[in-house]
Amino acid sequence: MNETLTSLDSITADANSSMTNELAARALDYCEQLALLTQTPGQVDRRYLTKEHQQANQTLVEWASEYQLSSWQDAAGNQWLRLPSANTNAKRLIIGSHTDSVPNAGKYDGVLGVVLGLVILQQLSKQQSQFDYHIDVVGFGDEEGTRFGCTLLGSSAIAGKWNPAWRELTDADGVSLAQAMHEFGLDASKVSRAHVDSNEVLGYVELHIEQGPVLEEKDLSLAAVSSIAGARRFDIEIHGHAGHAGTVPMALRSDALVCASRWVESVYQRAMQTAHSDHPVVATVGKMQVMPGGVNVIPGSVVLSLDIRSSSDAARDAVIESLQQDLEQLCSEMPNGRLKWLQTHNASAVACDPLMMKRVLTIMEQLGESSTCLVSGAGHDAMILADRMPVSMIFMRCEGGVSHHPAESVTQHDTMKAVQSLLLLVESYAHQ
Amino acid sequence: MNETLTSLDSITADANSSMTNELAARALDYCEQLALLTQTPGQVDRRYLTKEHQQANQTLVEWASEYQLSSWQDAAGNQWLRLPSANTNAKRLIIGSHTDSVPNAGKYDGVLGVVLGLVILQQLSKQQSQFDYHIDVVGFGDEEGTRFGCTLLGSSAIAGKWNPAWRELTDADGVSLAQAMHEFGLDASKVSRAHVDSNEVLGYVELHIEQGPVLEEKDLSLAAVSSIAGARRFDIEIHGHAGHAGTVPMALRSDALVCASRWVESVYQRAMQTAHSDHPVVATVGKMQVMPGGVNVIPGSVVLSLDIRSSSDAARDAVIESLQQDLEQLCSEMPNGRLKWLQTHNASAVACDPLMMKRVLTIMEQLGESSTCLVSGAGHDAMILADRMPVSMIFMRCEGGVSHHPAESVTQHDTMKAVQSLLLLVESYAHQ
Repeated sequence: MNETLTSLDSITADANSSMTNELAARALDYCEQLALLTQTPGQVDRRYLTKEHQQANQTLVEWASEYQLSSWQDAAGNQWLRLPSANTNAKRLIIGSHTDSVPNAGKYDGVLGVVLGLVILQQLSKQQSQFDYHIDVVGFGDEEGTRFGCTLLGSSAIAGKWNPAWRELTDADGVSLAQAMHEFGLDASKVSRAHVDSNEVLGYVELHIEQGPVLEEKDLSLAAVSSIAGARRFDIEIHGHAGHAGTVPMALRSDALVCASRWVESVYQRAMQTAHSDHPVVATVGKMQVMPGGVNVIPGSVVLSLDIRSSSDAARDAVIESLQQDLEQLCSEMPNGRLKWLQTHNASAVACDPLMMKRVLTIMEQLGESSTCLVSGAGHDAMILADRMPVSMIFMRCEGGVSHHPAESVTQHDTMKAVQSLLLLVESYAHQ
Repeated sequence: MNETLTSLDSITADANSSMTNELAARALDYCEQLALLTQTPGQVDRRYLTKEHQQANQTLVEWASEYQLSSWQDAAGNQWLRLPSANTNAKRLIIGSHTDSVPNAGKYDGVLGVVLGLVILQQLSKQQSQFDYHIDVVGFGDEEGTRFGCTLLGSSAIAGKWNPAWRELTDADGVSLAQAMHEFGLDASKVSRAHVDSNEVLGYVELHIEQGPVLEEKDLSLAAVSSIAGARRFDIEIHGHAGHAGTVPMALRSDALVCASRWVESVYQRAMQTAHSDHPVVATVGKMQVMPGGVNVIPGSVVLSLDIRSSSDAARDAVIESLQQDLEQLCSEMPNGRLKWLQTHNASAVACDPLMMKRVLTIMEQLGESSTCLVSGAGHDAMILADRMPVSMIFMRCEGGVSHHPAESVTQHDTMKAVQSLLLLVESYAHQ
């Protein structure tokens, strides 16, 4: 155990050491190289079970082999890399994220968490560090759901939540998931073999770009994540009465867009009122279609979406109830107004493991980062694993909060901090 | 002149006579028959310079011939019908409207004003009434602009406002207006021959369905029109900043839809404030596009339209100025918000001829209708003619204010009142 303590000391004593500097640079270089494995020339676009997915897995294996790490691909196409323990009964500490992307993506969403895990394994292997536990890195083959329309397939497989019916899902070209697995060298009937026994796992940590502007606003590199918000989504129809824009007096109108607009303001205000509460709610009307849509026609109908999230399902649902009442009231003020609500999505909030989060928070303090936690508004692989094993997440600042876009950008400085945080977390399990 | 006086007496003495009853029924039957001349089976769809336009003109001529009326088609394809005067220096009193339609139209918009003129000519011819003036009916071949995207072509030709460049306009199939005229038997280089010398014209009266709900609201059959509102139209872009619906806190958002929604409310309120003024303004946001339009993406941009009208250009422009200030203010409250205004249309309000309107108002009182005038929020052929000759308009109630839709509907009772009003107006010129 002496070597472990030595390496921990070296990290904390020399947080800007040339070692972390070099690891951060290598991780960012890996991101650049993986970005070239794309099905759309000139853009980052890497989807589940494609040739580029296969190339990415092989590339990770090559980079791992250079440092004598072991590796294997599981039955769902997830890529595993390992610094093995000498202990035959060793548990597993998992560092993970995903290697797939949205179309026209950035270079860091998902991939960064995988390659950071890899460079840490490389460094620990180079130092010949010995641990009582395996340190695993997993690159999930699908998180974004871009190819088959169903998200988080990779982590679902290792959590034992793979739905056999997914084999029938098809991509835009009509290729089924089963067929794609076959072409990839996998067998859709054997995905259950990817299942990881929760009893073997010490914990799962996912380092991910924040995809939001809060760290930048607070001038922080990193933050612990306390929970992943639960989202509900609705499609809403508002029906008034179309009419001629020139001939119907204002007082006789039943304008569905005026009604919808008042409600958009309501959505904004109700969410804003929670901003300083323990469980802020964010609410967004992202889609709106105005019909019939003529420049000289009073809108007869509006179809719009509501996406609403919070770390507390109760806080979120209370706002939803108020918003439903608001809209009913607004609609009743419109002659012959009619409404339709349809819930299209409902996920509960998922809390990270309190003990693992405490461990991460201690590290944040050591690194001079904030001791307060962020809530993840976006979904992540960690949310699928949270009821199976202790999970934690660390967010890293990204420029302007931009993600899912070629403009995604991170700094060498923040990446160094991320390297340090993961090294400290890995080593922290040695002190138990 | 004796016969004229007799027929006038008979109208006013017996306003519900079997004669007006029969004329109204015939006019409504004509509307049904013309509705069958359509390029889209099962819908009313009759466009300028089509086979159906030709058939409609021929049908009007046949119906006129049965009553020994004269007729001719002018150089723009407008159809004229006449009860000629014996006076060789006679002036012309013109009753008119248009025979073209929007796609999937109703049966009455435009056509009703033409066939009401026709049945009145038929009746006066049958009575062998003699007048000091020609009584003309004109069916304009294009008012809606459906085929060539440019409205009011028919009345523009007789007003001497035909633009020779219009010959290059093309329809959805790429057929030029010049080519369509040629196929119709006309010559695009000779449209100026359709020009009507204003000095020959006593006045122009257009009877049209209201296309709005005011007469129904007031339980009236008819009303005089004082003016045709001037419309201005704008395309407006609002740019904020797109972002992830889950990860960007409410206070850090630059949501273009929230900004747009507040302004839609502003548009409504500013117009409502004028509702009881001398010159009410109506304002409508009829088109709105929200981008990028993802359910989980904060709207980065909104493109929307404004259509704003009033009988007073000054009243309208004052509201526009306030709305521009409102939007600038709202946009400035949005971090990095940007705006773009583009005016796409600007027409001045057009007043009907005061003396002719007084004549119409007297008739409205005789018929027990309102002595107050409506403003036409929609554009009409009369607005093109108003600076060339005295024009007047009479609005007739339509069910629910609906127009440009198969549900367009009028009653026999109101049509009888319309017959009476036009007969009285025609005869009124005999008493000078």
